[in-house]
Amino acid sequence: MAILHSYPFCPHSRFARLILAETGLEPDFAEEKPWDRRVPFLELNPAGNLPLLVDDNGLAVPGARGIADYLDDMRGADLGSRRLLPQEMTQRVEVRRLLDWFLVKFHEEVTDYLATEKIYKRFMPADLGGGPPDMSAIRAARTNVRYHLKYIGFLISKRNWLAGDQMTYADLAAAAHLSVVDYLGDVPWDEDETAKHWYARVKSRPSFRALLADRVPGMAPADHYDNLDF
Amino acid sequence: MAILHSYPFCPHSRFARLILAETGLEPDFAEEKPWDRRVPFLELNPAGNLPLLVDDNGLAVPGARGIADYLDDMRGADLGSRRLLPQEMTQRVEVRRLLDWFLVKFHEEVTDYLATEKIYKRFMPADLGGGPPDMSAIRAARTNVRYHLKYIGFLISKRNWLAGDQMTYADLAAAAHLSVVDYLGDVPWDEDETAKHWYARVKSRPSFRALLADRVPGMAPADHYDNLDF
Repeated sequence: MAILHSYPFCPHSRFARLILAETGLEPDFAEEKPWDRRVPFLELNPAGNLPLLVDDNGLAVPGARGIADYLDDMRGADLGSRRLLPQEMTQRVEVRRLLDWFLVKFHEEVTDYLATEKIYKRFMPADLGGGPPDMSAIRAARTNVRYHLKYIGFLISKRNWLAGDQMTYADLAAAAHLSVVDYLGDVPWDEDETAKHWYARVKSRPSFRALLADRVPGMAPADHYDNLDF
Repeated sequence: MAILHSYPFCPHSRFARLILAETGLEPDFAEEKPWDRRVPFLELNPAGNLPLLVDDNGLAVPGARGIADYLDDMRGADLGSRRLLPQEMTQRVEVRRLLDWFLVKFHEEVTDYLATEKIYKRFMPADLGGGPPDMSAIRAARTNVRYHLKYIGFLISKRNWLAGDQMTYADLAAAAHLSVVDYLGDVPWDEDETAKHWYARVKSRPSFRALLADRVPGMAPADHYDNLDF
């Protein structure tokens, strides 16, 4: 049985959970706290980043992007027209551009701040940086998320899905990251109806159900978090 | 003619130059200052990151990792046994793991600090952050580079190249990043002879020549920078 080492509110872990489910795989889950740097985990993944997929063939595949590429190599052809990394070159370049956009840029500008300050720091020991949130980091993230939401709205005004006619890794990366921000009530959905409708489409997928059932102990989600119609 | 939008001492740009040369391509180069955020460049690449390859078919391919994947899709099969992303699955996973290691982790812990503080800030306008270097950032990078060098030595003590028997994208990513640090004289080569010999092998390749000819205006490289035997 494959095992996904992950953390419920790590946005990269959420992306991996979505793409595994969309690929039809149901791994076991092993919770790994992002700040722990446990030696047994570092032995599996020296870089220490999440997520890590250990496939049932024993191969350890680290990182959101690495897992996406691996799944496409191993299972992409079986998905036919539902393939999450399309075959046509212009689309492949666009999916990868947007993967970078959400897994790197959106993470640096939004999710990393919010997940760290509002969630991780509640559970981290003080000597690893736990404690009250840094409000200036939260304010920066709340400012930044607005132009990302506009960018999603801009793309969806021209296309059915973020990278083109079909749903791809790009939509799942964007939605995985937004889902963490949405739990915290920090997505100003009213500012972009187009982006909001796109997100409602993604979060209605069966692959999203498990994410919507996650709860941060002691912190309720925004009211609409698991409402499929908003 | 393909054009690579890049900056001589941007480590990701250097990686793209190496893999283009190893793939047998000779694009034109357009210099783009990483801090400029020029509107005509943002129109080609909304994320604004370097490098950006505009292929002769007009397709704009952003980012070090995106260009590597694109070149493998377009030209990888032509390279036969010299393919930089091997076909065998265990090796592909290992190459991608190490690409992440050097393009993300090494960049965050070493190259980003050093390139920004020692090079970019010399040329950036003050209102964009130019000025004297932050010595604490430089000290952090100099501490961090030591364990990365040991890790390279550890891998090369078991293998011919970083990811296995043949040279791959992993070697070129590591060497591209190290080349910036080496220009600045901040690689403690004496601490790991195995890593040093591996780097001498990579920097002796014809693809490396153009990198070794680059100069930062007003700042000479370390004495051994372009000495192929150290």
